[in-house]
Amino acid sequence: MVNASLTSDEIAEHSSAKSCWVIIHGKAYDVTEFLSEHPGGSKIILKYAGKDATEEFDPIHPPDTLDKYLDRSKHMGEVDMSTVTTEVRAADPFETERQEYIKSRPPLEQCYNLLDFEAVAKRVMKKTAWAYYSSGADDEITLRDNHSAFHRIWFRPKVLVDVEKIDMSTTMLGTKTSIPFYVTATALGKLGHSEGEVVLTKAAHNHNVIQMIPTLASCSFDEICDAKSGNQIQWLQLYVNKNRDITKNIVQHAEKRGCKALFITVDAPQLGRREKDMRSKFEDNGTSVQSNSGESVDRSQGAARAISSFIDPSLSWKDIPWFKSITNMKIVLKGVQRVEDVIKACEAGVDGVVLSNHGGRQLDTAPSGIEILAATMPILKERGIQNKLEIYIDGGVRRASDIVKALCLGATGVGIGRPFLYAMSAYGQPGVERAMQLLKDEMEMNMRLIGAPTIADLNDTMVDARGVALHSTPIKDTLSISAYDPLVAPAFRSKL
Amino acid sequence: MVNASLTSDEIAEHSSAKSCWVIIHGKAYDVTEFLSEHPGGSKIILKYAGKDATEEFDPIHPPDTLDKYLDRSKHMGEVDMSTVTTEVRAADPFETERQEYIKSRPPLEQCYNLLDFEAVAKRVMKKTAWAYYSSGADDEITLRDNHSAFHRIWFRPKVLVDVEKIDMSTTMLGTKTSIPFYVTATALGKLGHSEGEVVLTKAAHNHNVIQMIPTLASCSFDEICDAKSGNQIQWLQLYVNKNRDITKNIVQHAEKRGCKALFITVDAPQLGRREKDMRSKFEDNGTSVQSNSGESVDRSQGAARAISSFIDPSLSWKDIPWFKSITNMKIVLKGVQRVEDVIKACEAGVDGVVLSNHGGRQLDTAPSGIEILAATMPILKERGIQNKLEIYIDGGVRRASDIVKALCLGATGVGIGRPFLYAMSAYGQPGVERAMQLLKDEMEMNMRLIGAPTIADLNDTMVDARGVALHSTPIKDTLSISAYDPLVAPAFRSKL
Amino acid sequence: MVNASLTSDEIAEHSSAKSCWVIIHGKAYDVTEFLSEHPGGSKIILKYAGKDATEEFDPIHPPDTLDKYLDRSKHMGEVDMSTVTTEVRAADPFETERQEYIKSRPPLEQCYNLLDFEAVAKRVMKKTAWAYYSSGADDEITLRDNHSAFHRIWFRPKVLVDVEKIDMSTTMLGTKTSIPFYVTATALGKLGHSEGEVVLTKAAHNHNVIQMIPTLASCSFDEICDAKSGNQIQWLQLYVNKNRDITKNIVQHAEKRGCKALFITVDAPQLGRREKDMRSKFEDNGTSVQSNSGESVDRSQGAARAISSFIDPSLSWKDIPWFKSITNMKIVLKGVQRVEDVIKACEAGVDGVVLSNHGGRQLDTAPSGIEILAATMPILKERGIQNKLEIYIDGGVRRASDIVKALCLGATGVGIGRPFLYAMSAYGQPGVERAMQLLKDEMEMNMRLIGAPTIADLNDTMVDARGVALHSTPIKDTLSISAYDPLVAPAFRSKL
Amino acid sequence: MVNASLTSDEIAEHSSAKSCWVIIHGKAYDVTEFLSEHPGGSKIILKYAGKDATEEFDPIHPPDTLDKYLDRSKHMGEVDMSTVTTEVRAADPFETERQEYIKSRPPLEQCYNLLDFEAVAKRVMKKTAWAYYSSGADDEITLRDNHSAFHRIWFRPKVLVDVEKIDMSTTMLGTKTSIPFYVTATALGKLGHSEGEVVLTKAAHNHNVIQMIPTLASCSFDEICDAKSGNQIQWLQLYVNKNRDITKNIVQHAEKRGCKALFITVDAPQLGRREKDMRSKFEDNGTSVQSNSGESVDRSQGAARAISSFIDPSLSWKDIPWFKSITNMKIVLKGVQRVEDVIKACEAGVDGVVLSNHGGRQLDTAPSGIEILAATMPILKERGIQNKLEIYIDGGVRRASDIVKALCLGATGVGIGRPFLYAMSAYGQPGVERAMQLLKDEMEMNMRLIGAPTIADLNDTMVDARGVALHSTPIKDTLSISAYDPLVAPAFRSKL
Repeated sequence: MVNASLTSDEIAEHSSAKSCWVIIHGKAYDVTEFLSEHPGGSKIILKYAGKDATEEFDPIHPPDTLDKYLDRSKHMGEVDMSTVTTEVRAADPFETERQEYIKSRPPLEQCYNLLDFEAVAKRVMKKTAWAYYSSGADDEITLRDNHSAFHRIWFRPKVLVDVEKIDMSTTMLGTKTSIPFYVTATALGKLGHSEGEVVLTKAAHNHNVIQMIPTLASCSFDEICDAKSGNQIQWLQLYVNKNRDITKNIVQHAEKRGCKALFITVDAPQLGRREKDMRSKFEDNGTSVQSNSGESVDRSQGAARAISSFIDPSLSWKDIPWFKSITNMKIVLKGVQRVEDVIKACEAGVDGVVLSNHGGRQLDTAPSGIEILAATMPILKERGIQNKLEIYIDGGVRRASDIVKALCLGATGVGIGRPFLYAMSAYGQPGVERAMQLLKDEMEMNMRLIGAPTIADLNDTMVDARGVALHSTPIKDTLSISAYDPLVAPAFRSKL
Repeated sequence: MVNASLTSDEIAEHSSAKSCWVIIHGKAYDVTEFLSEHPGGSKIILKYAGKDATEEFDPIHPPDTLDKYLDRSKHMGEVDMSTVTTEVRAADPFETERQEYIKSRPPLEQCYNLLDFEAVAKRVMKKTAWAYYSSGADDEITLRDNHSAFHRIWFRPKVLVDVEKIDMSTTMLGTKTSIPFYVTATALGKLGHSEGEVVLTKAAHNHNVIQMIPTLASCSFDEICDAKSGNQIQWLQLYVNKNRDITKNIVQHAEKRGCKALFITVDAPQLGRREKDMRSKFEDNGTSVQSNSGESVDRSQGAARAISSFIDPSLSWKDIPWFKSITNMKIVLKGVQRVEDVIKACEAGVDGVVLSNHGGRQLDTAPSGIEILAATMPILKERGIQNKLEIYIDGGVRRASDIVKALCLGATGVGIGRPFLYAMSAYGQPGVERAMQLLKDEMEMNMRLIGAPTIADLNDTMVDARGVALHSTPIKDTLSISAYDPLVAPAFRSKL
Repeated sequence: MVNASLTSDEIAEHSSAKSCWVIIHGKAYDVTEFLSEHPGGSKIILKYAGKDATEEFDPIHPPDTLDKYLDRSKHMGEVDMSTVTTEVRAADPFETERQEYIKSRPPLEQCYNLLDFEAVAKRVMKKTAWAYYSSGADDEITLRDNHSAFHRIWFRPKVLVDVEKIDMSTTMLGTKTSIPFYVTATALGKLGHSEGEVVLTKAAHNHNVIQMIPTLASCSFDEICDAKSGNQIQWLQLYVNKNRDITKNIVQHAEKRGCKALFITVDAPQLGRREKDMRSKFEDNGTSVQSNSGESVDRSQGAARAISSFIDPSLSWKDIPWFKSITNMKIVLKGVQRVEDVIKACEAGVDGVVLSNHGGRQLDTAPSGIEILAATMPILKERGIQNKLEIYIDGGVRRASDIVKALCLGATGVGIGRPFLYAMSAYGQPGVERAMQLLKDEMEMNMRLIGAPTIADLNDTMVDARGVALHSTPIKDTLSISAYDPLVAPAFRSKL
Repeated sequence: MVNASLTSDEIAEHSSAKSCWVIIHGKAYDVTEFLSEHPGGSKIILKYAGKDATEEFDPIHPPDTLDKYLDRSKHMGEVDMSTVTTEVRAADPFETERQEYIKSRPPLEQCYNLLDFEAVAKRVMKKTAWAYYSSGADDEITLRDNHSAFHRIWFRPKVLVDVEKIDMSTTMLGTKTSIPFYVTATALGKLGHSEGEVVLTKAAHNHNVIQMIPTLASCSFDEICDAKSGNQIQWLQLYVNKNRDITKNIVQHAEKRGCKALFITVDAPQLGRREKDMRSKFEDNGTSVQSNSGESVDRSQGAARAISSFIDPSLSWKDIPWFKSITNMKIVLKGVQRVEDVIKACEAGVDGVVLSNHGGRQLDTAPSGIEILAATMPILKERGIQNKLEIYIDGGVRRASDIVKALCLGATGVGIGRPFLYAMSAYGQPGVERAMQLLKDEMEMNMRLIGAPTIADLNDTMVDARGVALHSTPIKDTLSISAYDPLVAPAFRSKL
C-alpha cells in the first residue's frame, strides 16, 4: 500500500512499537516488523516513531539501506513535508561552543602532524560523532598503547649513506603504491563529513594511496567505487554475514567493481563495549532507579553497538577455503593477534594478515600490532616462512617514523584510519590530502635520517625493539596526551 | 536487676568509666565491665556513656550482638524514650553536600562498569563509611596495585574460533555456578546500606552467584542465611576466635544452615592500620599537645580497629586438622600469599586457597593475588600438584577481563568484594544486580574476543603475564585514578 | 685586652674585613683573623660585622664553639646591651603565614605515620631551617629514590605462623635495644627546636632506642651526653678533622663519656651542593649582573656549605688502623656505597658499615642504601663473609615495613634521621616519642602480618627485591609526593 | 649598475617575485634571481620585497653572507635611509611581558645549575629565538630522553680514597684542556645575543675550554677566530657543501686560522622537522582553507628549515679519504649513532666520533649519545679497538655528574651546546662563564664524592648503566620538567 502524499498527522498515528512509521528523506516507511532486527536496537527507532528521522538516519546508513533491507511493501510513500514541523531543540551549550570553534578553526597550514588534526577535530565535531570515532574498548588502554608502543621502539640510524634520492614507493599485494601505507576501513564516514568516505577516495587518488572500503561505510559501496579515478586501487574490508549468499554477493560484486584484495575482519565476532560512545549517546529521561531492578543492560549503547548484528560470530578457519573458492581477489585476514594464528594463516594459504586489535575498539589490553609484529617475525624467520604471506599492521600510526619502524620489523605496509577521519572531519578533502602529504614529507626525511634510500634498505638492525613488550614509556608524548579525551565517571544530574 | 522504665536522667548518672550505661534501641545496658574487652576500644563507648548510642551502634554490630556478648544481668531494661532528647548536631558542610549528591545521583543505566559505582558511592556515602570501605593499609600501594596488576597482563587472543555460543558457567568447590566469580566476604555492610548483607544475598540469588558470608557482617549470620532462596549457595568466611568452642559453634551452625565451604582467613592475625579510616573517625576535642607526651598511640582508630579483638593471632598450620575434624564443609585458606604456603596447603589436605592480600587492607606492598598466581602455577605444575586443590584469587577485580586473565593463569574463580559494596551503597539491590549483569555482558564479550567459547578453553597461552612482576603500568587507567581518594596529611585546624 | 663594658658604638667601629667584631650573647668577639677560616665563609660573618649576631649564630653553633675555636685574646668582653638596638625587619609574608600555621597545628594524635610529621614541619618551620633539613644534592633524585626504593621491594608473607607474641628487640653492636632502628646523626638540631639534640636524647631514652651523636650538633657533645639517663646507649658520628689531635681528643672523650661505637663518616670528603638550601639563604642585595663577570661561584651557599671545612678530604683506608689504635669503641664506616668497599671494610677489620648516601645530600643519582644492600648480601654470602661485620642502612626509612625489608635482606638495623627532626620541629619531644611509638606499633603489626614472631625469623625469602634496581615505582606514594617540596627555578625579581 | 643614493620609493618598485630588491644595513640588493636558491625559501624574502629586511636578516646571516653569495652586480648601492620609514607594529602582549621579564631578571648568582639558565632564557628570549634553540624533532622524545638518560645511570662511588687534590684536566684530540667538555657547535648565535658566537669564544678562553665553531654561525668564521686569545683552541664543525670546492676552501681556511680538528656532521643529510620552531614562525594571513587543497607542505617552516640547502645529502663513507687528503686537522665524525658505524669509522681511520643525535633535532626516538656509548664500548673492548679513536658524546648534558658518567663509560669528553646559548641569551658572557664555573665546581665535588682524584681514575665500575636502555625514569626531574616547554596543538583563531 502506497499513499500518494501522506501528512504529518497520518504518520504520527504510527508512533508505537505496535505500529511504527518513520519519515526518511520525505518518504514514510513502516518499520514495525523490522524493529526487532535493527542492529542498533529498537529503542533508537522508537524515539522517532511517527516522526522525521532523517537527521539521525543519514550519517549511519548508506543511502541504499532501505532498498536493501526493507521490503518494498513497507515503503509507504511520499510525505507532504510542508505538514511536518521541525522540532525546536533546547540550545545545547556544547553545540554553541562547537559552532564557535568551527568559525575559529586554525588555518590548515598550522597542522604540522597527524595529531594536530585530532586536536582540531575534537573541537569541531559533533559530540556523538567524536565519541564514536575516538572511543575504544573498556579502559582504552589498548587504544592508547597502540600509539605509545611506537615510542618504545628506538632507531639505530646509519650515517654516511648516500640519501640524495629517496624512493618510498613499494608494492603491496601486487600493486605498486607511492608510500607503504593504506587508508584502512573505518565505519560511518558521514559522522565526520557530509560526503562520507568518497572524500577519502578522492584524496587517496591524488596521493596514489590505496583505500580499503569498509563494509559499514556511510556511503554505499558503489558510491565509493564510482568516486575512484584512473588506475586507483581499492580493497574491500568484509564483515562476514551469517547469510553466506549475502557475503558472496558482496565479495563478487566488489571483485567485479575492480577491488584487488579482500580483507576479512576476524577480530570482531562481537563488537566491543566502547563506553565513551555509550555515554555520549545517553539521554537522561528521568527513569527512576527502582524500575531498573533486575533489568538487563540497557540497549541504547551508542553508535558502536548500532552496527553489530550483521557479523557472524561462528566464522572460523573452516570458512577460509570457501572464500578462496568464490573470489580471485587476494585474501587477507584482518585482526590476527598471535603468532600461532599467523602460522595458521600461512597454512590456510591466504595472501596476508593484518596484525591489529581493531584500533583498540575490541578487547582491551590486547597488545598493539607493532608489538605482535616484533614478537612474530623472529618466529616466522626461524621457520623460514616469513615470505609466505604479507604482513600488515594497523593501530596507533601517527608519524612516518611509525611506518618506518613497522617496515624495519618486517611489515609490508601499515593501515591508517582515524587520523584521516579526523583530518576529513576538521578540514574535508584538503585536510586528508595535507595529512597524506605530511606523512610523505616525514617519510622522506626519516628515510634520509635513518640512512635508507629505498624501502628495501629498511631492516631490523635499524631499530631497537627490546623495550616494546616492557610497556614503559616515561617520556610524555605531550601532543597525544593533550589530544586524548579521558574516560569519565557518570555525571551527577545537577552539578553542585 | 531490670528497671521497668528508665529515664534519661537515670541513665545519665552512669556516664563514666566507673559506671557506664548506654541506650541501644530503647533499652539500657550496663557496659562498665565490658569496656576493657570492647574490640573497638573503650573510648568510643565512653563517648556515649549515659546517652543513646543506637545510631553509632547499628551499622557495625549485628542485632544479636548484645545477646551474645553481654550477660543478661547487664541488660538494664526499657528506657522511656520520651525523656531522651536527640542531640542537635552542628550542620556539617560535607553532609549537606552529600545530601545534594544523593538527590542528583546519576541514573543507574549510566553506570557502565564497576568503577562507575565507586565514583558514585564516593559522593553519596557517609564520610566514615566511605573511609572504612575504601581504605587500605599504610600508603595504599597494595590496594592500588591489586587493580593495576591486571593491566600488566596482556591478552594473546585467538581468532577464527566459532564463538557463537558462549558458556561461562563453571564449577567451584563442587557447585555449579553461572560465572566464575563469587561475592567475597566484606565487613559492616550496613555502613553502606541500611539492610546490610542481605541485599547482596538477594542479588546473588537473582544472578546465580555464590555469596561468602562474612564473620563481621552487620546482619547476623542467620539473617543472611534466611535471606537465601531456592538452591542458592553460600560459603562462610571465618575469623578464628581464641575460644575454639565459639569457633566450633560458628562452623557447625553454618554447616547446619547449609553453607557449602569454610574459608578460614589466614592473613589477619592482627588487623592492618588503615589511616584513611582512622583520619575519617578523628574528632578534634582540643586536647593540648603536651598532654600526649609519652602516651601510646591513640586507640580511636576508626572502624578498622573496632573489629580486631576476636581474631586469634596464634592460629597456625597445627590447627588445620582440627577444622577438618569438626566439619564436612570444604575447607579453603583465604589469604595465602606465597607459593611455599600453597604447597603446605596441599600437604595439609585443604580443598583450596585464596591468593589474596585482604584487599590491600593488611600488609602494604604485599603483592596482588594475580601476581602471586602467575608466580605460583608454574611451580605447582612443575611438581604436578596443580590439581590437588582449587586456587582462587581476590583483590582489584573490576572487569570481566580481569576474571578471564585469572582463569587463563589457572584460577578456578575470583572473589569480588568492594565493587558490590559500592553498587549497593549507591543504588541498593538494583545496583548490585546491574554490576553483576555488566560483568556477565563483559564476560560473554571477552570470551568471544579471546576465542574461548567455554571456561575450559581458557589457558595460559592466551595471556602474556611476563610484565606482572615488573610493576610498570604507564598507560593511565583514568577511571580508576579519578575514583581513587588519595591519602592526605593531617589538616591544620583553621585553614589559612 | 678585655674591656669592662663595651657600647654599641664601639663595636660598630669594627664592621669591616679589616677589623671585624661581633656580639654573641652580650659579649664582643674579634673575629678578624678567623674570617678566612670560618667553615661557612667570611661573607656570612661580615654581614654582622659590628653588630649583634646572636640570633644567626645560635642554631648552628654549639655553645662551646667560641671557647673551642677562638683564642681567649679575641674575647673582647661584655657589651652594654642597653646600647644595642634591635634591627626592625620588614614583615615577611612567609613568616606571618608560618605563625598562623603554628597556631593551627594539627593535634599530635592526628599524625599517623612519619610522613605526617614532615607535612606539618614544612609549614611550621622557619624557611631556612626547612630548606636545610629537607634539601638534597643536585636534582634530589637520590633523596627521593631513597624512599621510593622501598616500594620496589615486595613482601612474600608467611601465613599460619603463631604470631601471638612479637619480640622486636635485637642486638646492635653488642647492645640490646628495643627495636632495630637508631636515631642517626643529623646536624644543626636547633634549627628545628630551641633545645636541639637533647630532645632526641630524652625521647630515645623513653623508647630504649640508641642515639648517634652528630659531630655537627647544635648542642655540645657534653650537653648531649649529660642528657642521657640510666643505661641509655649513645654512639658517636665523626667527621674526621685534618688535625688528627683534635680527632683523637673527640674520639677518646666520647669513649670516656660512655659512647659505645664510633661511626666514621666516609661519604663526605666535601659537602654536597644542596640548591634548595642555597636558594633559601639567598638575599638579593641588588648586585648588578655585570659585576659578576668572571667571578667564581658565590660562597653564601646556605647552611650546608657553612659546615664543610672541618672535614679531611684526604681520609683513606690507610687511616683505619690508627682509629683502631686510639679507641676500644666499635668502629663502623658510615657511607659505604659499593660491595667492593664492604669487602675492604671486612678486610680492614671494622665492626660494621652503614650503606648510606648521606640522606641524598652528597652525590645525586647515588643508589639508596637498601638497593646497595640487596646487591651486596648475595656477594658476601657467596664469599662466606656475611657475618664478619654488621651491616646497617639509612636513608628514606619512613615505615616499619621499610625496616622489615632491610632486615629481611640482611641488615642488622637501620638509621632514621630526618623524620625525628621533623617530629621534633613540629611537636618537640612528644612528637619524637609519638614517631617512635608509631614505628613500634607498625613493627609489631608488620611482623605479625609477615609471619615472623622474632627478628631472627626475618629472612630473604620474605621479600621480592628483584625490582629494586629497576627504578620503576608506578603506584604513586601520595603522602610522600605531597610532602615533597620540589626544586624551583630562580625567581624573577618582581612577579608579573 | 650601482646607484649613488636610492630612495625608499625606488626600492618599493621592486616588491614582487619578478623584481625583488631588499634593503640590508642601508644598502639595496637585487635578490630576484636568488629567490629560488635561498635556503630558507623565497617566501620569507618576498615578505620584505621592496622594504628594509635588516632586522630579520641580521640574526640568521653572518655579515659576509651577501658578499659571499650575491654577485657584485646585484649590489644596487646606498639607500637614503631618511626616506625609509620604520613600520609600526601592533603591540604584541608576549613581547610586552618579555620586556617586563627582562627588567626583573633574577640576579646571576641565583643560577645554581645549567637548567636555571634555561628557565630564565625561556622568559627573556624572543619567542622565535627561544623556539629555534629549544625545539627538537617531531614529538621531542629524543630531545628529552637525552637528558633523562643520565638519570637512568647510577653511581657506584668509592669511599676512603684520598681526594684532597682533584685534577679534572684532560687531553682531547691532542690538546690539554681544563675540564673534559667543549662548547659544541650550535647555529644562529645572534638569535640569543646581539654579539653572537664571539661571546662563547671569550668565555671559553677565560675557562680554558675548547670551542667548536659552527658552519651556521651568525658571526662569520673569521670573526669567531679573531675573537680568540692566547693559545685558545678552536675546532671546526662542518656541514659539507655539495660544491666540494667550497667545502675545501672552508676546511683549508680553518686549518690556516689555527683550528685543530674538523668535526664533520654526518647526522643531517636533511634538517629535521622542528614543529615548535615552525609554529613560532607561523603568521596567520587569513588564507582560506580551500586554497590549500592539494598544495604541498608550506615552506615557511621556521628558522630550522631556513638553513638546510647547503648540506649535501649524498655524503658517504666514500668521501672520508678525500677529507683526509685536504687537511692535517684531526677528523671526527659528528652524529654517529650505532656501534657498526663506530667500527666503520675506526676502519676509515678517523680520529674520533661524536655519538650524538644532534640535540634531538633530527630523528625522533633516536637514542641518546650516552645510551649509544653504553652499548658501544663493550663491543669495542671485545674487539680490542677501544683506543683506536676518541669517543665523544653530546646531548642532554646539564650537570657535571653527566660528564662523569660519560667518562666512566669510556668517553674522552662531552659536548655542551644549548645550556651555553641559554646562559648567553639570559646574561651574556658573565652568564656563560658562570655556567662554566658551576660545571667546574660540580665536577670537583663529584670527583671527590665518587672517589676519583683524576680523570684517569674514572672507570666503568663506578656506574651502573644497566637501566639506561630500559627507558624508565620514575623520579621526576622537577627542574627539567618545569623548564620544558611542551608541544601544543594548533591554536584556534579566537579563543573561546
